[in-house]
Amino acid sequence: MHSSQGVLSGALPRIAADILERLRTASPAVHCITNTVAQAFTANVLLAAGAVPSMTLTHAEIGNFVESADALLINLGTFDGERREATLIALDVVRHRGKPWVLDPVLIDRSPPRAGFAKSLLARRPSVVRLNAAEFKALGGTPDAASVSHFAGEAAIVIALSGAKDIISDGQRHVAVTNGHPLMAKVTAMGCAASALTAACLSIEPDAIRAAASALLILDIAGEIAGDAANGPGSFASGVIDALHNLDAVALEQRAKVS
Amino acid sequence: MHSSQGVLSGALPRIAADILERLRTASPAVHCITNTVAQAFTANVLLAAGAVPSMTLTHAEIGNFVESADALLINLGTFDGERREATLIALDVVRHRGKPWVLDPVLIDRSPPRAGFAKSLLARRPSVVRLNAAEFKALGGTPDAASVSHFAGEAAIVIALSGAKDIISDGQRHVAVTNGHPLMAKVTAMGCAASALTAACLSIEPDAIRAAASALLILDIAGEIAGDAANGPGSFASGVIDALHNLDAVALEQRAKVS
Amino acid sequence: MHSSQGVLSGALPRIAADILERLRTASPAVHCITNTVAQAFTANVLLAAGAVPSMTLTHAEIGNFVESADALLINLGTFDGERREATLIALDVVRHRGKPWVLDPVLIDRSPPRAGFAKSLLARRPSVVRLNAAEFKALGGTPDAASVSHFAGEAAIVIALSGAKDIISDGQRHVAVTNGHPLMAKVTAMGCAASALTAACLSIEPDAIRAAASALLILDIAGEIAGDAANGPGSFASGVIDALHNLDAVALEQRAKVS
Repeated sequence: MHSSQGVLSGALPRIAADILERLRTASPAVHCITNTVAQAFTANVLLAAGAVPSMTLTHAEIGNFVESADALLINLGTFDGERREATLIALDVVRHRGKPWVLDPVLIDRSPPRAGFAKSLLARRPSVVRLNAAEFKALGGTPDAASVSHFAGEAAIVIALSGAKDIISDGQRHVAVTNGHPLMAKVTAMGCAASALTAACLSIEPDAIRAAASALLILDIAGEIAGDAANGPGSFASGVIDALHNLDAVALEQRAKVS
Repeated sequence: MHSSQGVLSGALPRIAADILERLRTASPAVHCITNTVAQAFTANVLLAAGAVPSMTLTHAEIGNFVESADALLINLGTFDGERREATLIALDVVRHRGKPWVLDPVLIDRSPPRAGFAKSLLARRPSVVRLNAAEFKALGGTPDAASVSHFAGEAAIVIALSGAKDIISDGQRHVAVTNGHPLMAKVTAMGCAASALTAACLSIEPDAIRAAASALLILDIAGEIAGDAANGPGSFASGVIDALHNLDAVALEQRAKVS
Repeated sequence: MHSSQGVLSGALPRIAADILERLRTASPAVHCITNTVAQAFTANVLLAAGAVPSMTLTHAEIGNFVESADALLINLGTFDGERREATLIALDVVRHRGKPWVLDPVLIDRSPPRAGFAKSLLARRPSVVRLNAAEFKALGGTPDAASVSHFAGEAAIVIALSGAKDIISDGQRHVAVTNGHPLMAKVTAMGCAASALTAACLSIEPDAIRAAASALLILDIAGEIAGDAANGPGSFASGVIDALHNLDAVALEQRAKVS
């Protein structure tokens, strides 16, 4: 089942560097239906990586914005009626246009109705679902490589499970990334930004597991670089943006811990 | 009336250090109904202090989030119909479950309807009301120790009045804190974050005046430490988050100006 | 047509320094109907310049807030039904009270319905429209001095077109500012904040072209100062706030590139 695993993991730093360079050249537009807490940090992460964010929600405009975007993020934080309606319109557009999209089922472990909505969105085949261990459990998974692989294979999507060890799988191939920094868990919206960056990578890389694994590797290594200089989570948050803006192939190659 | 005043004020640095340590160990969940301007900074202050924020508003989910939270913040900034509905549902949950909650009547001096709503919430007995001088005047108070004490006693709640001199009273006991830094008034949501931190402290400290006074002392001293190194309000804002993350009993003891 | 051009451009650093000093003394209240992505950064820019922001939207309160404000910003980012309703109420107040207001038609190039709404607002005579080249094209303009001047004259408003070269015109006079830093385009809400700062300047300077040109010059020079020390867009964003807080007449005079 994992015959191609070694090839992908060994090549990931180079793949990620290539994706990052293409992001900076192509400046893809990423439309984000995301929570109000995460919006500014998410926008700044996308800009630092070379992408162009937009975040409108209203039903009169969401179709136009998604039509002219290269990828879509659906993040379920601070979810409300306007976001639900926007999501359904946006998903119709991406289905018709064949655009990639990412689902981030934020805090579904805290809200059964939200978990139910997340499951209904899984049936619409997001390109990637990025989530943490508690959220994966709320979908019925177990936070280990075998369960992630099984879940991804059954749903025919890529699962990107974030944590001290990130596990990314499409059911056939899987990659694990152990880069990152403990302060990443102390900055609000870091996971939300990882999902947005995944959407940006998908806009220029059709192989969804490559896009998702690259996004997590890129943000994790930016986090490590920021962590080396930070005095705490405040300076760390702006340091991650700086490091992402300055990240190059050499740092990705030297720091990557991929298996 | 103030027989226990000296005991509380002298012990406050140690009480605050103990609360901060318990926050970091217990990682309480604090649900925040707060304004969109303040959400990200508030979340980062809670994370830096050891708490776990959530900020959903929608009526279908607010009950679930408050059920699984340890304390609640009601902040009246950018108040709208959704926030009003969320507030009423959330307050029913905290009443049934006996959870602590904080009211922050943001800018009620600018809006008579909002002041009226704040007064109706006072009747529901928040554990603590944290506000500034203009907001206290809009509730009929005068920003001095006697008026704060009288108001707190009449309403049977703790009043935490922020300013160059913070005054905290439950009607029987009162404490004044003169720590802080002028740049605290130049960063949006600093007061909102103080209220959220008060809610976090209440989740692990049932004596509301101890919780409120500790929250203000902790944030004020983090502000002083950040102010020593800041170049202006931008670096100050991230410096406060850093200082809060790194704050310890020694700094609290050495810097506290409590009477 | 441009007989007074030289006088205004030569005097602009001094005019901007005078406006900045008056902002810090008067602390005008600026009400912002702005998008959720931009709110916190916008509030911090206004505070750093000496103004006092408020951002409430709900129809029950917007009238009270605008009545007690000195200027109004209408920013069309993340525009929705609540913002549309708030805008119409707010504009009735500013018309009756003769208060200045700024229109920022964010991303109208991405959404025909929003472009249509922006055009309907032009007919209500904003004091200043601040926008970028793509947004100006969506209004039918061409991003050069002649077109900006023509458009401003026809609409009887001030147009402030931001870019590597800012062009500000009221149809009779025009000024160009070439200060700024490339990282300004990599921080979300930098343009939104420029519009808010324009509203702040208008609250104390009735000559709208002086107010708009001063706001852009002030923010551009703060950007240059921040750019000298920044490691990337994260540290740059807080550096702009610091530089704005510390900006003085000497830096404005020494750095200004105005024609």
